[in-house]
Amino acid sequence: MTDPVELTRALVRCPSVTPEEGGALVLLEERLSAAGFACTRVDRGGISNLFARWGRAGNGPAFGFNGHTDVVPVGDEAAWTHPPFGAEEEDGWLYGRGATDMKSGVAAFVAAAIDFVTETPPEGSVVLAITGDEEADALDGTTALLDWMAENGERMDVCIVGEPTSLEQMGDMMKIGRRGSMTAHFTLRGKQGHSAYPHRAINPVSAIARLCDRLASRQLDLGTEHFDASTLALTTIDVGNAATNVIPALARCTANIRFNDEHSGESLTEWLKAEGDKVAEEFGVEVGLTVKVSGEAFLTPPGPLSELISGAVQAVTGRTPEPSTTGGTSDARFVKSHCPVVEFGLVGHRMHQVDERVRVEQIGELKAIYTRMLEEYFARA
Amino acid sequence: MTDPVELTRALVRCPSVTPEEGGALVLLEERLSAAGFACTRVDRGGISNLFARWGRAGNGPAFGFNGHTDVVPVGDEAAWTHPPFGAEEEDGWLYGRGATDMKSGVAAFVAAAIDFVTETPPEGSVVLAITGDEEADALDGTTALLDWMAENGERMDVCIVGEPTSLEQMGDMMKIGRRGSMTAHFTLRGKQGHSAYPHRAINPVSAIARLCDRLASRQLDLGTEHFDASTLALTTIDVGNAATNVIPALARCTANIRFNDEHSGESLTEWLKAEGDKVAEEFGVEVGLTVKVSGEAFLTPPGPLSELISGAVQAVTGRTPEPSTTGGTSDARFVKSHCPVVEFGLVGHRMHQVDERVRVEQIGELKAIYTRMLEEYFARA
Repeated sequence: MTDPVELTRALVRCPSVTPEEGGALVLLEERLSAAGFACTRVDRGGISNLFARWGRAGNGPAFGFNGHTDVVPVGDEAAWTHPPFGAEEEDGWLYGRGATDMKSGVAAFVAAAIDFVTETPPEGSVVLAITGDEEADALDGTTALLDWMAENGERMDVCIVGEPTSLEQMGDMMKIGRRGSMTAHFTLRGKQGHSAYPHRAINPVSAIARLCDRLASRQLDLGTEHFDASTLALTTIDVGNAATNVIPALARCTANIRFNDEHSGESLTEWLKAEGDKVAEEFGVEVGLTVKVSGEAFLTPPGPLSELISGAVQAVTGRTPEPSTTGGTSDARFVKSHCPVVEFGLVGHRMHQVDERVRVEQIGELKAIYTRMLEEYFARA
Repeated sequence: MTDPVELTRALVRCPSVTPEEGGALVLLEERLSAAGFACTRVDRGGISNLFARWGRAGNGPAFGFNGHTDVVPVGDEAAWTHPPFGAEEEDGWLYGRGATDMKSGVAAFVAAAIDFVTETPPEGSVVLAITGDEEADALDGTTALLDWMAENGERMDVCIVGEPTSLEQMGDMMKIGRRGSMTAHFTLRGKQGHSAYPHRAINPVSAIARLCDRLASRQLDLGTEHFDASTLALTTIDVGNAATNVIPALARCTANIRFNDEHSGESLTEWLKAEGDKVAEEFGVEVGLTVKVSGEAFLTPPGPLSELISGAVQAVTGRTPEPSTTGGTSDARFVKSHCPVVEFGLVGHRMHQVDERVRVEQIGELKAIYTRMLEEYFARA
């Protein structure tokens, strides 16, 4: 039996801060190869990814799992009560960056897959598409894996993304869709001058404060049938001027928008441009805007895959997962074009925050749920 | 006759970049001692200052001059067309760091004082308070001299600060007051989180945008009888968060305020605190505020001293200096608590910039004006 907690610990100890591989994929490749999976490193643009298949390609149905081993930066390390790459346990919690997002999820489906194919070899194949590039730009991550699969005749018939989707209790939620996501970078250029004579300068800092306040204050919508309201988060404003007697020439800011099916990357870009034009007019600054749409909003309507998940979750936990579309983006937005995809995983506690941690018992439960999905899927097939 | 141009040259050749004495005060002490001035080096906190008095302390009226020999750094030395400590002349200009700010002013009043007491010894005393710490924090400069004077029974009845105050032509402006200056640093602490779940985080970037927009939008006043309107300049906002999917925990900003006699450092600090409290309430952030008041606003209302200056300037140049309160701070803000003080000096050409330079003929004119002030002052006394 493969212990998913031990595997989680081993993965957390790999410092795979995006885009570093950090040893995590190497470790998984070893474990999976030993269990008879055909592994291929699909590296692109300096990013490491791992494709693993048990069973012959094209022989029967293919059940897929998708996940990532990269993690966001540690943040204020001094604020952590346990070392972020230590995988220390206390009171039933396992601490570390990636403990929930999503090294425990990867460990659970890898352990489930290994034990399942070992104990009850199915008529078909089990495919694992694991990326090291989900937290950053995700240009060379799951997309690279899907591109490579297309070129090499590999496929998944359904796919579970193992992101932490449970809200309060294990199994209370799955994700059947996701909001879109985009990032906007503004650069405001004014005219440098002396702080004592602001009328001789054009201050881009005042202009960016106004712009940012307007962006953050705007209610984008009130939500739609399957989606919550869209959100905008200012993530940074930077000027970097240490001289208090100087009005600087440049100010920059970034906003991240998560949007539902009432918007598109294009419609939101139009709005951002209009807001930039307004402060250009009001303050006399030049406004530069670059926008990156990392995913449009999408939905996998309720159907056989969500029913499969629901059954497995009920069997193990007694709970029925609510089909939801809340939260950020995940690589499901890419898998969506390949096959039906739903996300299901444990409770994401303190994701991206200090003291990220996971309930140890949930890792075993999650493995049991994933195992049940595999069993049900191949039993029906 | 003491040649103020020769003395300016000698001073410019002393590399007295603040806080270095650079030989400038040693040179002045030699010249003044030789002319019968009682000189005392008033050094404090590693800073050199020079107090010089001609005449017996407490015997008749005391006319004072204040100035500084320290200069700001050279900046991009390669951009200078003449060596910054070379005091080279070309086309009637004398080039060098401190050429106008304010070694020529010091040279002019030292030359005027020496020749005046030598040729027409007055019934009273002439006091020179010269500091080596004006360009930096000014904690141990003119303040140290005034403290020492108070402890040693020394005084000035009036004081001229020899900063370059003329705008376009020699004698067109004097400064009868200055705005106050203060700098406020805000630190806003929220709660870090994922950009996709802004409701679970507390975003200090949104809060600082609102705060900054309010600060910059506030009209502090419309100006007062002798002063322009007070100004606030945002000089920086900094977050330094490169991860677009993370809402950061901290945001910082700085505002520089130049204020007239309708405000004080204290009243403005109260306002800043209230604005901080408002966003703390609205956004749930913790707000830290540190304030540094580098000078309160002050005014020496038009009266005998400004009339004395006006008369001397008219006699030498035919111009009437406009009494102004514009510009940054100067050491007059310290002298103000000691005696009536007005600033008067030549045209400040390229102060703090590369190729700082002075019209050579203005140095002689300035000496003539200072001499006339001394003559008129003691004639009336």
